[in-house]
Amino acid sequence: MPRVSQDHLDARRRQILDGSRSCFARFGYEGATVRRLEEATGLSRGAIFHHFKDKESLFLALAEDDATRMADVVAEQGLVQVMRNLLDDPADGGDAPGVDWLGARLEVSRRLRTDEEFRARWAQRSEQLTAATRARLKWQRDAGNLRDDVDVDVLTAYLELVLEGLLSHLAMGLPAAHLGSVLDLVEESVRRHRGG
Amino acid sequence: MPRVSQDHLDARRRQILDGSRSCFARFGYEGATVRRLEEATGLSRGAIFHHFKDKESLFLALAEDDATRMADVVAEQGLVQVMRNLLDDPADGGDAPGVDWLGARLEVSRRLRTDEEFRARWAQRSEQLTAATRARLKWQRDAGNLRDDVDVDVLTAYLELVLEGLLSHLAMGLPAAHLGSVLDLVEESVRRHRGG
Repeated sequence: MPRVSQDHLDARRRQILDGSRSCFARFGYEGATVRRLEEATGLSRGAIFHHFKDKESLFLALAEDDATRMADVVAEQGLVQVMRNLLDDPADGGDAPGVDWLGARLEVSRRLRTDEEFRARWAQRSEQLTAATRARLKWQRDAGNLRDDVDVDVLTAYLELVLEGLLSHLAMGLPAAHLGSVLDLVEESVRRHRGG
Repeated sequence: MPRVSQDHLDARRRQILDGSRSCFARFGYEGATVRRLEEATGLSRGAIFHHFKDKESLFLALAEDDATRMADVVAEQGLVQVMRNLLDDPADGGDAPGVDWLGARLEVSRRLRTDEEFRARWAQRSEQLTAATRARLKWQRDAGNLRDDVDVDVLTAYLELVLEGLLSHLAMGLPAAHLGSVLDLVEESVRRHRGG
C-alpha cells in the first residue's frame, strides 16, 4: 500500500474521532445516533464504519485517544498543571483536553457504572494516566520536591481523585470561583514541607 | 384531614422515593420508564403521579431528599467522615448514602451537563450541602482545629471537590485500595499544623 494512502487513512480516522467526540459529548452515547455521527463527522456511515467496527469500538478508540493525549501532558507538566489548564480555559483546544473531552469522559463514567462488559473493555485502556502520574511523582520525589512521608501510590490516587472531582465539577457547569486556590492547596499538600 | 391520612401520604411518598431511587440508579433517567417505576415502587402510575407531578418532579424530589440526608450527616460528623462512611460500605443503608444514591447522583451530574432547564431547577436545591459543610468548618476553626491560613470557602470547595471525585470513582466501580490513606491526607491538609 503506497504511503499516501496510509496518511489518508490516518487523516480520516482523526476526522472521525474529532467529529464524534463533540457528538458523544453533546448527545451522550445512546443519543449519538449514526445519523448524528454522520453530520458531526461530515462522512457517510459507510466511511465511518470502514474505520471502526461499530459505535462501541469508535467510542472506546476515542476514550483511549483522549487518555493518551492527557498522559502525554501529565508526563511533561504534571497532573496539577493539567488541572490548572482545564480551569484556565476548559473550551481550549490545543494540547489541553477541552469541554468535548469532559463530556466524553463523563459518558465513560456513566457507562462504567451501567455496563459490565464496557467496564472490562475499558479497564485494559485506563492505566495510562495512572502510570504517567506515578512516573512523574517518582521523578519529583527523586528531585527532592515531594513529601516523603506518604507513599507515591497514595499521592497518585489523591491527585487522580481530585482530577475526577474537577472533571465532574466542570462538566456540570458549576462555578469555578475557588478552584484555583483549591489547586494551590492540593499542590502544597503533595510537596515537601520546608522549614519548621 | 385526619392525622392518620397524613401519615399514610408520607409513607407512600417515602415508598415511591425509595423504590424509584434504585430504578433511576440502575436504568438512568431516560431508562427509568413509567412501567419500571411501577415495578420498582410496587405502585401503579396513578398512585405515583398522585404524589409527584411528573417524572422530572419525582427525580428532583429524590435528589433533594438525598441532599438533605447528606447535609444532616455533614452537620453532625463532617464531610471527611461522610466520605469515610462511603468507603467503609457504599452499599450500606442507614444514615450513609448507599450505591443507589451514588447512581442517582451521577444521573444528576449527567443531566446538569445536558439539560439547561434542569440545571436551573437544580441550582435552587443544591446549596444545602455546601452550607452544612461551611458551617461545620467554621465551627472547627473556632475550636482551633482548622488551619487558619486558607479561607473557609476555599476549604469547603476543596472538600466538595474531593467528594465529587470520590462519588465518581465509587460509582464507576474503580478499586478503592488507597482511598483510606487518601482521605487521611485530605483531612490532614485542612487541619491546623501543630508544632514545627
